[in-house]
Amino acid sequence: MNEPTQPIIKLGVPKGSLEAATINLFERAGWKIRQHSRNYFPDINDPEIAASLCRAQEIGGYVAAGVLDAGITGLDWLCERGHDCQVERVADIVYSKSSNRSCRWVLAVAGDSSYQKSRDLQGKRIATELEDLTRRYFAGQGVDVDVFYSWGATEAKVVEGLADGIVEVTETGSTIRAHGLRVIAEVMVSFPVLIANKKAWQDMRKRTKIEQLNLLLQGALRAENLVALKMNAPTAQLDAILQMLPSLNSPTVAPLRDAQWLSVETVVQSAAVRDLIPLLRNAGAQGIIEYALNKVV
Amino acid sequence: MNEPTQPIIKLGVPKGSLEAATINLFERAGWKIRQHSRNYFPDINDPEIAASLCRAQEIGGYVAAGVLDAGITGLDWLCERGHDCQVERVADIVYSKSSNRSCRWVLAVAGDSSYQKSRDLQGKRIATELEDLTRRYFAGQGVDVDVFYSWGATEAKVVEGLADGIVEVTETGSTIRAHGLRVIAEVMVSFPVLIANKKAWQDMRKRTKIEQLNLLLQGALRAENLVALKMNAPTAQLDAILQMLPSLNSPTVAPLRDAQWLSVETVVQSAAVRDLIPLLRNAGAQGIIEYALNKVV
Amino acid sequence: MNEPTQPIIKLGVPKGSLEAATINLFERAGWKIRQHSRNYFPDINDPEIAASLCRAQEIGGYVAAGVLDAGITGLDWLCERGHDCQVERVADIVYSKSSNRSCRWVLAVAGDSSYQKSRDLQGKRIATELEDLTRRYFAGQGVDVDVFYSWGATEAKVVEGLADGIVEVTETGSTIRAHGLRVIAEVMVSFPVLIANKKAWQDMRKRTKIEQLNLLLQGALRAENLVALKMNAPTAQLDAILQMLPSLNSPTVAPLRDAQWLSVETVVQSAAVRDLIPLLRNAGAQGIIEYALNKVV
Amino acid sequence: MNEPTQPIIKLGVPKGSLEAATINLFERAGWKIRQHSRNYFPDINDPEIAASLCRAQEIGGYVAAGVLDAGITGLDWLCERGHDCQVERVADIVYSKSSNRSCRWVLAVAGDSSYQKSRDLQGKRIATELEDLTRRYFAGQGVDVDVFYSWGATEAKVVEGLADGIVEVTETGSTIRAHGLRVIAEVMVSFPVLIANKKAWQDMRKRTKIEQLNLLLQGALRAENLVALKMNAPTAQLDAILQMLPSLNSPTVAPLRDAQWLSVETVVQSAAVRDLIPLLRNAGAQGIIEYALNKVV
Amino acid sequence: MNEPTQPIIKLGVPKGSLEAATINLFERAGWKIRQHSRNYFPDINDPEIAASLCRAQEIGGYVAAGVLDAGITGLDWLCERGHDCQVERVADIVYSKSSNRSCRWVLAVAGDSSYQKSRDLQGKRIATELEDLTRRYFAGQGVDVDVFYSWGATEAKVVEGLADGIVEVTETGSTIRAHGLRVIAEVMVSFPVLIANKKAWQDMRKRTKIEQLNLLLQGALRAENLVALKMNAPTAQLDAILQMLPSLNSPTVAPLRDAQWLSVETVVQSAAVRDLIPLLRNAGAQGIIEYALNKVV
Amino acid sequence: MNEPTQPIIKLGVPKGSLEAATINLFERAGWKIRQHSRNYFPDINDPEIAASLCRAQEIGGYVAAGVLDAGITGLDWLCERGHDCQVERVADIVYSKSSNRSCRWVLAVAGDSSYQKSRDLQGKRIATELEDLTRRYFAGQGVDVDVFYSWGATEAKVVEGLADGIVEVTETGSTIRAHGLRVIAEVMVSFPVLIANKKAWQDMRKRTKIEQLNLLLQGALRAENLVALKMNAPTAQLDAILQMLPSLNSPTVAPLRDAQWLSVETVVQSAAVRDLIPLLRNAGAQGIIEYALNKVV
Repeated sequence: MNEPTQPIIKLGVPKGSLEAATINLFERAGWKIRQHSRNYFPDINDPEIAASLCRAQEIGGYVAAGVLDAGITGLDWLCERGHDCQVERVADIVYSKSSNRSCRWVLAVAGDSSYQKSRDLQGKRIATELEDLTRRYFAGQGVDVDVFYSWGATEAKVVEGLADGIVEVTETGSTIRAHGLRVIAEVMVSFPVLIANKKAWQDMRKRTKIEQLNLLLQGALRAENLVALKMNAPTAQLDAILQMLPSLNSPTVAPLRDAQWLSVETVVQSAAVRDLIPLLRNAGAQGIIEYALNKVV
Repeated sequence: MNEPTQPIIKLGVPKGSLEAATINLFERAGWKIRQHSRNYFPDINDPEIAASLCRAQEIGGYVAAGVLDAGITGLDWLCERGHDCQVERVADIVYSKSSNRSCRWVLAVAGDSSYQKSRDLQGKRIATELEDLTRRYFAGQGVDVDVFYSWGATEAKVVEGLADGIVEVTETGSTIRAHGLRVIAEVMVSFPVLIANKKAWQDMRKRTKIEQLNLLLQGALRAENLVALKMNAPTAQLDAILQMLPSLNSPTVAPLRDAQWLSVETVVQSAAVRDLIPLLRNAGAQGIIEYALNKVV
Repeated sequence: MNEPTQPIIKLGVPKGSLEAATINLFERAGWKIRQHSRNYFPDINDPEIAASLCRAQEIGGYVAAGVLDAGITGLDWLCERGHDCQVERVADIVYSKSSNRSCRWVLAVAGDSSYQKSRDLQGKRIATELEDLTRRYFAGQGVDVDVFYSWGATEAKVVEGLADGIVEVTETGSTIRAHGLRVIAEVMVSFPVLIANKKAWQDMRKRTKIEQLNLLLQGALRAENLVALKMNAPTAQLDAILQMLPSLNSPTVAPLRDAQWLSVETVVQSAAVRDLIPLLRNAGAQGIIEYALNKVV
Repeated sequence: MNEPTQPIIKLGVPKGSLEAATINLFERAGWKIRQHSRNYFPDINDPEIAASLCRAQEIGGYVAAGVLDAGITGLDWLCERGHDCQVERVADIVYSKSSNRSCRWVLAVAGDSSYQKSRDLQGKRIATELEDLTRRYFAGQGVDVDVFYSWGATEAKVVEGLADGIVEVTETGSTIRAHGLRVIAEVMVSFPVLIANKKAWQDMRKRTKIEQLNLLLQGALRAENLVALKMNAPTAQLDAILQMLPSLNSPTVAPLRDAQWLSVETVVQSAAVRDLIPLLRNAGAQGIIEYALNKVV
Repeated sequence: MNEPTQPIIKLGVPKGSLEAATINLFERAGWKIRQHSRNYFPDINDPEIAASLCRAQEIGGYVAAGVLDAGITGLDWLCERGHDCQVERVADIVYSKSSNRSCRWVLAVAGDSSYQKSRDLQGKRIATELEDLTRRYFAGQGVDVDVFYSWGATEAKVVEGLADGIVEVTETGSTIRAHGLRVIAEVMVSFPVLIANKKAWQDMRKRTKIEQLNLLLQGALRAENLVALKMNAPTAQLDAILQMLPSLNSPTVAPLRDAQWLSVETVVQSAAVRDLIPLLRNAGAQGIIEYALNKVV
Repeated sequence: MNEPTQPIIKLGVPKGSLEAATINLFERAGWKIRQHSRNYFPDINDPEIAASLCRAQEIGGYVAAGVLDAGITGLDWLCERGHDCQVERVADIVYSKSSNRSCRWVLAVAGDSSYQKSRDLQGKRIATELEDLTRRYFAGQGVDVDVFYSWGATEAKVVEGLADGIVEVTETGSTIRAHGLRVIAEVMVSFPVLIANKKAWQDMRKRTKIEQLNLLLQGALRAENLVALKMNAPTAQLDAILQMLPSLNSPTVAPLRDAQWLSVETVVQSAAVRDLIPLLRNAGAQGIIEYALNKVV
């Protein structure tokens, strides 16, 4: 009864910490992914895509091997597992579990220790989930350390005396500080990337599909930090008002039936609105409303 | 202190699997329903309605008996309990727990069994929650089976060897396939329906209220799969762009202060946007934004 | 690596029952507050504010003492702890956990008791979380009662025979009725208030920041019960249609390319829409859509 | 690798409200049942039994039809579905979800209604999960009522005005009273029963297995309300002490090395201990200890 | 149908943090308390007791006022609310949420602050849930401080800079240390106490019931840290073995049929067993088993 | 105030899937471990031990490096990380999350595939959490495969077409079968092991402590599958009854005051009781009781 079209691409979608944010981003981009408890293949409302939910750590390997045509994974794990040079890195898609910032892998030590830079850890124990990148980092610094793989709760390793330093991921540094640790170096900046298998990328039909995916995901991602602002501006004040608006997209100005007024509509950073609105009101704008956007292309 | 107006209609709202989706649909339609843990009567912000949360299975009976004036229930249970001809079926309201598709009651058997059609189950055991409809279905086919009422987990009945076939509800068939079962016939298509007591339907005051409910629920339902798309179009390209837009609602075209450009706004299926946006950009549209809608009437 | 600007104000944000609603309101107003499980200071995306999550009951005291510059707390606890005259009450911000109504502290008794007014409780036991206000209330009425502090589940105290009456908070009265109690008097109306330390309020830099906060919070609050309604109106019907629209904000009327039609857009109470839409359609409006708003200033 | 012996009996174990209590009872009786999330057949550490977890409501039908050889189900559902005369009722196993008491199906009405006996409900609406037994009960009383099937939350039906009376199950009556209802008649007493298929019961190998099950389940059930009490008794006080002990099992009296003392050990109702211990101490018993029992046969 | 005997005492049982431990202790003592979600009065399987679940903070007041005859509450709240001299303190019942140790209210400050004793906090801010005791404590020390009531999360107050010191409860001090705080003084030792209304205590019938409760609760409490140890001892080694056993209760020595061996049984601290067992084995004891006890009187 | 004795050993306790079972086993062995939410070091009621909760995967490395003196970890991870030859393997402690069986790592393939033995997977993709052991296993078989690290949900990898075979852990094989997979080879048997750092093992004070730990853990582990059975036996039937009892420990036979009877007490496998009890009753035993044991040494 269900005779699905043959999909064009097999796509790896990251399961776990990025899962909810990814499904949400896809939804705003125009694709609904639904996971079933007893079913292995999530539904996606596009017959041209066969989606597969895997851990971000696994996607690079499967894309490199051609088991998947494309996927979204973290740059950190892509490099850690050595897949960065084995796949086509199509685009950076900078979002995260709860904000849309990049994250950083940093070297942190006990707040009250005397370590000030990587070199001070010569001969010491480092706990991390990124064993390989950590080894490469210290080798690059000419520092010899013992790296211990850490299965989570890495910050606690220093406090418990199991390690002298850790290499751990953070967005704002606040969890690291909350454990009484101090960051002394940045090891790597990471964010999700859209990758493709090298052969799939040469296949024009697959590539077009992957590019469509990229265009819409970027449009949805952009919309997340933007809002639409709409107001009625006195014709005489238009220039003053237009000057206040950030030049992100040029504002749309339309005549109203009452020629004394114009309608001005624009898209701005949501964080800028709180400073903009008092200014606009002072300049004579009225009926200012703000509404949310799904996509901005 | 709270002296409520006398309500015009008593309305049954389905509790259980449809509950969250129903309350959500009502909210977008303009009615907020709030359930209290220790209270029997949910609040609804309309003094003309007294809402009652009941199981979908029960609502048909209470509407038929006039205990409720109107209600939303599933067509399946309405028929199973024999209330379909005892009430006025006002309108179909096609939504579901997680999508807005109809569901189907299907006859399924073990994937590796030899059964290919209903007739092959002659003399066999069928487990189902819809005992009556199942009996009527097989009788209509001239097939004699033993029907066992199933209190949930019906798919497992075949795998456990308790039944030879099941009649079970499904949206996409994926849960059935995930249990290793195979669908061999469709027994019934079902979806929520708005029903009214026959007497209440003849009372113009009640009928007007029920029709208002229907209009707004349909408007909210429609909006769920639609989005607004807004863009600036070069005047010269307007016709090309208008031709791309689906003819659902005719697009609104407004002049801008800069006569080279026009503002185009339209409402489209959200699933069509991912194919539309690349085309619109190629045709010269700029500043394309998409935003969500509460209602489309 | 993170070198935060020196914040202008220290702000108390209520933790507990109002927490989710407050964080949500701030987000719509333009400030994202993120709480970390192991961290004491919530992130707020404004370097000019240092936020502190405290119980509403505590904020008044810390603002009065100048430990915090400003905060949002409930009027009830502000008065109960005697801080109402020790701080500057900047503005009422009328929202609540689940609706945006004020709440009332009421005197309630067993539904089947004979008590009809405060005076009937002379010499009786009253359980409440607001010990002081309750004592002041009864003293003001010249009634002598024994006040027992109640650590939650106050309604149950009457049913269990531990108290003869209670002074308890309620929005709709339905929880009180669900316990079989009857309200016989209103003791106090309460809602969140934005307060400032008296010295901080005299400091113009701090005051400007607090006023910006107030302006945007009010704008977000207002938007919650409003929606935008947009439609195409036949030019000939414009006046009829404009008359139907509530005069909240004057509607924006813009010409369309097709001179037979005008575009009409307005902001209305979301609860009014269900009655408005049938009227607008009858008057000839077409393509009516409703969408949500983040802010209305 | 796992080559299980052919089981002697297929056994239905009730899923749902009795499930945890049943698995617990089986464990104390000597059988560990482990349910796997993705697996249909629970593990049971006895190769002679194949266990099947079904709803209590379904087990009677499957045992009657010979799909299962034996099972544990409630007497209420056995009768409701008409299977009581189609199976062999091996033994009553009186336990429940949280106590080990029987439960009762009672007729309850609004506390403030005027109904005093079944007859007063002539022509009224009765909501219940036991449609058939309720119809038979009222027919037996010569009373004509409309029976509505209730999918749970039956007590609320009266409060909401959907029904005039309910037939509902209760252990202590407290939930019924907590909804403001009043019990006016007892319709049926129910408890779990061990049933067997009639043919299986004639097969001696199956019957022996079912009887072993019954012996051990009863032993475990008995132990639940019993404890062992052990003490040193002065030889001179032995008779006095023995007289105090309930004659459930005759106490075991053993000599000690110190001939002035005897060791006395007995099994008593756990609820009797609180009254017994003060008496035993007064009679000179020393070193009284109480310990729990798994089985008493 | 349920005609309960008139209870002899009304008993307050603490709800909240001690609730589960209390219900568990009562169960081992011989009373089963069952709480119903919609019911105010918990069931207790003793018709002579009417139980009432209240917050520990409230019980003292209700017992003092005679609303309850007896209750279990914490010594801390009894004193804080000033009820310690208004009730009869029957016995200390030293158990807690997770161990059976007393807890301590301590004065703690930031780990890296310079405060070393109470006096150093002169003029500072102290946050606590025990406002009154804290004021009395500092007054007793002749130190003037500002006491702020803290609604939970008190440790965080110091870290957030809202307070200079806290008075907070702790069992092991580990939560306080985990927040980076340092204990500088002990303000009070607390544990649950069984209290009685002064009049009720003079009523012999009530007093006897309260004393029975006390005897059995103490027996159950004692059993929690004790286990029974049973072994076969070579007759020749008996004295050596008896000397090893702690003299808590004198061990029970019984002859066996094989005169070379004696049976030795004793009750010991469970924490002592790990050191005892290697010694007993070296001394020739065989078949050593340990089992748990419900009560030791 | 808390001045802990210097601990003799630092002990790694496995966190995660074995955590609850381990803490439970330690408790029955005589050590209470309590974890605090904000604290890194779990409390253990033995001043001679400092416990550290780590993932089983990490413990081997820390014991090998001497950061910990001893620990409990799985044999599988000990070998996978290459630590098996770097530590002293003190004893096997065969328990698991839910039973006390060893687990096995097996090679499994799709149930309907044609693979029958390891060799059939030449050139195929194998997903596993034990990358290294899997590589060594296939190398030992002379089979060349691509090993992909799997972050959980390994069974799904075959069903999703991401891998041709998996090496996965299982106790009963039922989860593997439930995913439609078939086991074709056993790669490794695993269970928890108590390990010690090689230097620590040469330190007699540490070694004695580790051996005490081992003795008591084994005693508690043994007790889990055993129960005590106690009965009165007619003197004349003693030999018949003794012959029925498994010769695990020789039964304790004691005289009773009534010379016709003897008291018989023994320790037996709990799973044997269901077959033993009917036999004992037939042989004349009376007052048979079964009770649970904490330890059997």
